Amino acid sequence: MNRTATRMADGRELIYFDEVSTPGRGRPDRRELPPVESLSQLRYDPLVDEWVSVAAHRQSRTFLPPADECPLCPSTGDRLTEIPDPDYDVVVFENRFPAYSRHGASASIPDLPPPYAARPAPGRCEVVCYTSDHDGSFADLSPRRARTVLDVLADRTVEIGALDGVEEVFCFENRGVEVGVTLHHPHGQIYGYPFIAPRTRAMLAASARHADATGRSLFAEVLEAELDAKERIVATNDHWTAFVPAAARWPIEVILAPNRQLPDLPSLSDVERDAFVVLYLDVMRRLNGLHDTPAPYISAWRQAPVRQDRDLAYLHLQLFSPRRAVGKLKYLAGSESAMGAFLNDVLPEETARALRSA
Amino acid sequence: MNRTATRMADGRELIYFDEVSTPGRGRPDRRELPPVESLSQLRYDPLVDEWVSVAAHRQSRTFLPPADECPLCPSTGDRLTEIPDPDYDVVVFENRFPAYSRHGASASIPDLPPPYAARPAPGRCEVVCYTSDHDGSFADLSPRRARTVLDVLADRTVEIGALDGVEEVFCFENRGVEVGVTLHHPHGQIYGYPFIAPRTRAMLAASARHADATGRSLFAEVLEAELDAKERIVATNDHWTAFVPAAARWPIEVILAPNRQLPDLPSLSDVERDAFVVLYLDVMRRLNGLHDTPAPYISAWRQAPVRQDRDLAYLHLQLFSPRRAVGKLKYLAGSESAMGAFLNDVLPEETARALRSA
Repeated sequence: MNRTATRMADGRELIYFDEVSTPGRGRPDRRELPPVESLSQLRYDPLVDEWVSVAAHRQSRTFLPPADECPLCPSTGDRLTEIPDPDYDVVVFENRFPAYSRHGASASIPDLPPPYAARPAPGRCEVVCYTSDHDGSFADLSPRRARTVLDVLADRTVEIGALDGVEEVFCFENRGVEVGVTLHHPHGQIYGYPFIAPRTRAMLAASARHADATGRSLFAEVLEAELDAKERIVATNDHWTAFVPAAARWPIEVILAPNRQLPDLPSLSDVERDAFVVLYLDVMRRLNGLHDTPAPYISAWRQAPVRQDRDLAYLHLQLFSPRRAVGKLKYLAGSESAMGAFLNDVLPEETARALRSA
Repeated sequence: MNRTATRMADGRELIYFDEVSTPGRGRPDRRELPPVESLSQLRYDPLVDEWVSVAAHRQSRTFLPPADECPLCPSTGDRLTEIPDPDYDVVVFENRFPAYSRHGASASIPDLPPPYAARPAPGRCEVVCYTSDHDGSFADLSPRRARTVLDVLADRTVEIGALDGVEEVFCFENRGVEVGVTLHHPHGQIYGYPFIAPRTRAMLAASARHADATGRSLFAEVLEAELDAKERIVATNDHWTAFVPAAARWPIEVILAPNRQLPDLPSLSDVERDAFVVLYLDVMRRLNGLHDTPAPYISAWRQAPVRQDRDLAYLHLQLFSPRRAVGKLKYLAGSESAMGAFLNDVLPEETARALRSA
């Protein structure tokens, strides 16, 4: 993999990852851009012991631009986008409207007395473009390109995890306006959180209790239970298992887990990476085959935090969709949004069966 | 308040609450309805230590019917709805497609070995109709009617809380298709959960830690901090305070709290109930006045659990909307849905200012 790091006109970092050496890679960004500013701050909600990111500057972020103003297509002629070069394999760059950023150091942080608290929101938000085809999708990638993306996420996990103030690296993709996508061009994202995210904390706490009580990995036992039960398995290979969890929250939900416990993407071996790509593309095609149109989805890598509880985590990917039927979405209404109590209208066994036969 | 309890054709309970005695109240339900069935079950997600409700029968529930097929309008002539009588003040009935129900006892519960678990989903789901006007809204109610609704919620909290297996009573309203409403006719809902909801558990845990460390009520300190800071106060009266919390998660979010600690709605005094109604209608009108069209919202009463930690809870209402601007919604995308890490694009101080001047 050929790696070319450069800077955008406003100083943001941009890195090309090429499968073959590309002469002339890394052209200058010819745009005139205002300095990046971030007004992000973290506010502590004592009522549930969580940090909330307040990022007022993001209100003006680019919102569903027409295809000919897409900022994620390569630059061509006078049409200058976020990506100066005329083509790319995979390119990663700092988000122009970051929720977490080193640029946030200048934000004015309010004086919030206890039990509240406020602080700057350091960290990092990156955009991951994996195809220059505006109408492409991850499912359309070649295995080679998908493998390149995985290697890029592992690279970014190491680099972002080493940044000051980053506690957890979250690699994910949102696809579809139904899940809040603001740019149609397919892309992933990476958040370097300045805290351990609430759900990660809940998972680590459950994992720690289980390890204390039994000496075993909770996730490994879940995986074993699914392999024993068989009925929710979607697909497997020598190194990975894809299953609908027995307590799925979403009408479509699949976990892809390696067959051995690893903390994060950089820990994956070469063969495990190749094997993941095969299984993930297979599951993606099944997801797309469920209905006449591809389902919206959120694809989320769950990794160990950067510096604590790494032995408690078990790397896996959670892929889920709010689509409960064509034209019908699962909304996070009162019970989910206000109480965190999920209602799933679809039996996990049915979802697994549908995905197996898709 | 005049209370008339009756049964629907399929045996579900229906209760009219009338402001004045209404002769002939409680006509028979002349429909032929199949028996209520509930296939609800609870599945335990060990990875985060939470119960998920799986309710496959709800997939076929009524979905945005046209106005002339509205099941929440009163029955007229041959058009028979969920409400047999020709008019009503407030009427409450068991949901035909309940996520939690005594009818669920007959569902076949799968054998899920540890670390999973499955069990029936007892409990109760009720619909609260507070106006026979299909195009009405809570904000349009008279103070008297709004007070009746509050009294009904207090009544239901006591009755539902006394049912076998109910651990928490959650009264809420979803308004707008943007938050997943499946019936346009304005209505509230009540869930009698067979567990303590995840967010309630998080609040009780934070409250317990704070009480252990300081001997004080965490929520009372939050309220004091907001009263001291002043800038996020939306409106107040002698008994209630409405404020945008400093760590608001949503572009529009308001907490309405009584000025003294109470566990639940039944504990509210007569004057506190009247005072709530005045403040809530005022805040509702401000919410509706923010934009050209009324904002979608979720309105959620946070009460103490039925039988534990009642001294740790502090009754309040949380009102929030995902609308961040006209035509733009806050989506719960990767960070919120997968990680529980909220990004708010609007400063809480700005929201409070906008609501004050609306």
